[in-house]
Amino acid sequence: MNFRADITVMPHRALLDPQGKAVTASMGNIGLPEIENVRIGKHIQLDIVADSREEAEAKVKTACDKLLANPIMEVYEFTLAELESVA
Amino acid sequence: MNFRADITVMPHRALLDPQGKAVTASMGNIGLPEIENVRIGKHIQLDIVADSREEAEAKVKTACDKLLANPIMEVYEFTLAELESVA
Repeated sequence: MNFRADITVMPHRALLDPQGKAVTASMGNIGLPEIENVRIGKHIQLDIVADSREEAEAKVKTACDKLLANPIMEVYEFTLAELESVA
Repeated sequence: MNFRADITVMPHRALLDPQGKAVTASMGNIGLPEIENVRIGKHIQLDIVADSREEAEAKVKTACDKLLANPIMEVYEFTLAELESVA
């Protein structure tokens, strides 16, 4: 079975997000002071082959914990969709 | 009215994504060769004050076109949720 995972990795709420702060400040300069609290993270899309949805979920979790996210500074969440196999 | 926008900015399908290619290769090294086609983009969350949902949408579009995404290399999509006002 083929799955596509959509993963969002964001800095922890409690942490400063300097990139987001800089972008928030820039919003005023382009005439959009109504935009506030910008926070910037990563979005990762990947394809995965697994025997079941549970196995795919476990593998995506492993990939996030080991490689894609830094659990000290970031939180992640993901959705998993089954791709139609081209049989 | 207060809205929260969740914006996903991804590299165009047709373009090479060197960061994603590097991460795809690393997946094999951490024992997950079943993961392929990794593509890496940005996830941006922001708060916006507007008189209506239409106005908020227009402002988020402007922010994406002017600042958050590079339309030559990236595509973006976003969702908008109304926040409960603390009146």
